[in-house]
Amino acid sequence: MKSMCSMKFNNQNIFIGENVTIGENVKIGDNVRIYDNVTIGDNCTICNDCVLGEPVADYYEQSNYINPATHVGPNSLLRSHSIVYAGSSLGEYFSSGHRVTVRESFFCGKYVRIGTNCDIQNNVRIDNNSWLHSGIFVPAKTHIGKYVMIYPHVVFTDDPYPPSNQHIPPKVSDFAQVGAGAVILPGVSLGKHVLVGAGTVVTKSVPDNYCILGNPGKLKKRVEDIILENGSPAYPWPTRFSRGMPWNGSEFLTWKQHNYD
Amino acid sequence: MKSMCSMKFNNQNIFIGENVTIGENVKIGDNVRIYDNVTIGDNCTICNDCVLGEPVADYYEQSNYINPATHVGPNSLLRSHSIVYAGSSLGEYFSSGHRVTVRESFFCGKYVRIGTNCDIQNNVRIDNNSWLHSGIFVPAKTHIGKYVMIYPHVVFTDDPYPPSNQHIPPKVSDFAQVGAGAVILPGVSLGKHVLVGAGTVVTKSVPDNYCILGNPGKLKKRVEDIILENGSPAYPWPTRFSRGMPWNGSEFLTWKQHNYD
Amino acid sequence: MKSMCSMKFNNQNIFIGENVTIGENVKIGDNVRIYDNVTIGDNCTICNDCVLGEPVADYYEQSNYINPATHVGPNSLLRSHSIVYAGSSLGEYFSSGHRVTVRESFFCGKYVRIGTNCDIQNNVRIDNNSWLHSGIFVPAKTHIGKYVMIYPHVVFTDDPYPPSNQHIPPKVSDFAQVGAGAVILPGVSLGKHVLVGAGTVVTKSVPDNYCILGNPGKLKKRVEDIILENGSPAYPWPTRFSRGMPWNGSEFLTWKQHNYD
Repeated sequence: MKSMCSMKFNNQNIFIGENVTIGENVKIGDNVRIYDNVTIGDNCTICNDCVLGEPVADYYEQSNYINPATHVGPNSLLRSHSIVYAGSSLGEYFSSGHRVTVRESFFCGKYVRIGTNCDIQNNVRIDNNSWLHSGIFVPAKTHIGKYVMIYPHVVFTDDPYPPSNQHIPPKVSDFAQVGAGAVILPGVSLGKHVLVGAGTVVTKSVPDNYCILGNPGKLKKRVEDIILENGSPAYPWPTRFSRGMPWNGSEFLTWKQHNYD
Repeated sequence: MKSMCSMKFNNQNIFIGENVTIGENVKIGDNVRIYDNVTIGDNCTICNDCVLGEPVADYYEQSNYINPATHVGPNSLLRSHSIVYAGSSLGEYFSSGHRVTVRESFFCGKYVRIGTNCDIQNNVRIDNNSWLHSGIFVPAKTHIGKYVMIYPHVVFTDDPYPPSNQHIPPKVSDFAQVGAGAVILPGVSLGKHVLVGAGTVVTKSVPDNYCILGNPGKLKKRVEDIILENGSPAYPWPTRFSRGMPWNGSEFLTWKQHNYD
Repeated sequence: MKSMCSMKFNNQNIFIGENVTIGENVKIGDNVRIYDNVTIGDNCTICNDCVLGEPVADYYEQSNYINPATHVGPNSLLRSHSIVYAGSSLGEYFSSGHRVTVRESFFCGKYVRIGTNCDIQNNVRIDNNSWLHSGIFVPAKTHIGKYVMIYPHVVFTDDPYPPSNQHIPPKVSDFAQVGAGAVILPGVSLGKHVLVGAGTVVTKSVPDNYCILGNPGKLKKRVEDIILENGSPAYPWPTRFSRGMPWNGSEFLTWKQHNYD
């Protein structure tokens, strides 16, 4: 343990397990539980009542259980009551809402945000700069690309003939936007720049650059054909929205040319 | 601090910040966190693990951060694990379920109820006697009128072309009823006495006194034309339901004449 | 109190009320609150921050309140931050996810699982071997049969003309499968072996052995007519899925003949 600066906290009722490494300028709230083999990068804030390195059920049964390593990248902010299972790795500048649950062997890139009450199952991967809003369910092994935004209450599924042991993890491609309350059926992939309307039930994979609406979801139009009131196209969105993104304003196309693999 | 009666609690692991005012006959549960500049009215019960005056992210970054004032009206009951951000004001007889999140600068009138797991964003306003049930998401700056009831898992949205910085806050008019699992699209307003059927995706504003059903939602009929099995009209509902409301039984019309602005 | 083995826990900040009986080999996590008149069977694990025997609102108002008895069956696992109200009875081998809320007078049989963030209202009954996944809402007095599986974000409703005092509790029959994000309207019953597709809004009762899809839900076909890629029927599912169930693999029909009432 290098140091722990926690001027904003009271250090009441904190538990820290063995082999925990805490970076410089880390703030740790009251009632936080940090289990064995957790590393926290510099400048992180772990708010009250969070749990890091939550062990899987074997911990309670096996006397020789060893907790898998958990990493929290530097400059991350975990809001209160969030739970990160052991074996997960959060990229730098991660932020969570309250009461987020992230199951074991989760991996995410940089600048990822996961909102209040989200439930992210094991082995999910989320790439850089993707944001999940409030109350979203993501099943095991889902892959969410870069610059994806998923709005409140979306639920992804993975079992075409439930119950079964043959799950098909969802895939969401870069820049996709998934509207609030959408339900994504098992085996469905969402292409790049896809826009799923709020409340849509997506029953088939959506090709790149399409907007889909309804229940069952129907391809409505290409996203380039969605026109704002000012007469300019709304999509692809990165030409008109850059808050928190690594490009500036309308410079997206130039940025993409040089940075996007 | 005037006094604190907490016979029902153990006073274990409570944190109380500076300039906190607690009324008469207030009960405060274990592990409660009360940050600076919170006022709690008389006869309130703040159950275990609640957080009052939760600071925004600046608190963790700025040494000169001052927590905005937070008010909890008298006779309120906050069930366990609820979080109320700083700058919010809860009217008298407020009650919450468990794990409610209310973001900064929230304002509500009297006799408002917010159910378990609701996530209410910043600057939302809810008027007197409105009830939100379980697991509802309400975006920033939404205005919910009086005597509105919103049933479990409803999600409101505010961004017609996500992602953007041009959000249109939802508006729900007095006496509206919003069925479970409904999704309300951006820019939609719900009129007075509107009934939204469970599972409806509301894509356009609904005029006063209409019932809307389906995905996409279609105006079905006027609410006065929904007839109960006993042959009497089901709506407007206040003539047949008064539990917790300021009128008695069938006296709604008289009450309305004298009290309703 | 017979004994308490909690080698895996730190015994920090635990509250245990009066007349609490704790079986052999029970593990109790930090910050757990156990109110009066709770019985915990042998070999249970009660993880951090759980609440057992949560009292109803009268507790805060009445000095002579007596907490109803709460039972946790042997070999149960309650994951962290779950709340079980007083007067509930959890059958043996119960398991919960995180932050489950179970209201008063809940009753469940053996091998029942309730996932993260579920909100189960009072007087609900769930029979043996039924599993509820993440973020499900179940209204008061609902009866869920045996071997039922309900997937994430499903919401059940009980009031045909909200608001009212005439609620009709939902009924889900044995072996039914209810897909993610489905909304079940008031007064609807789901028959045996029913399959509700993800995102379906079920407006009418579904007869035994039918699959229903869409909004509004339409009967699609008999479940026996859903054929897997290998050419065999997908339903009834117990002939091809037995993980955690009391029969083995394809022996379901034999098991059923001897065991199923």
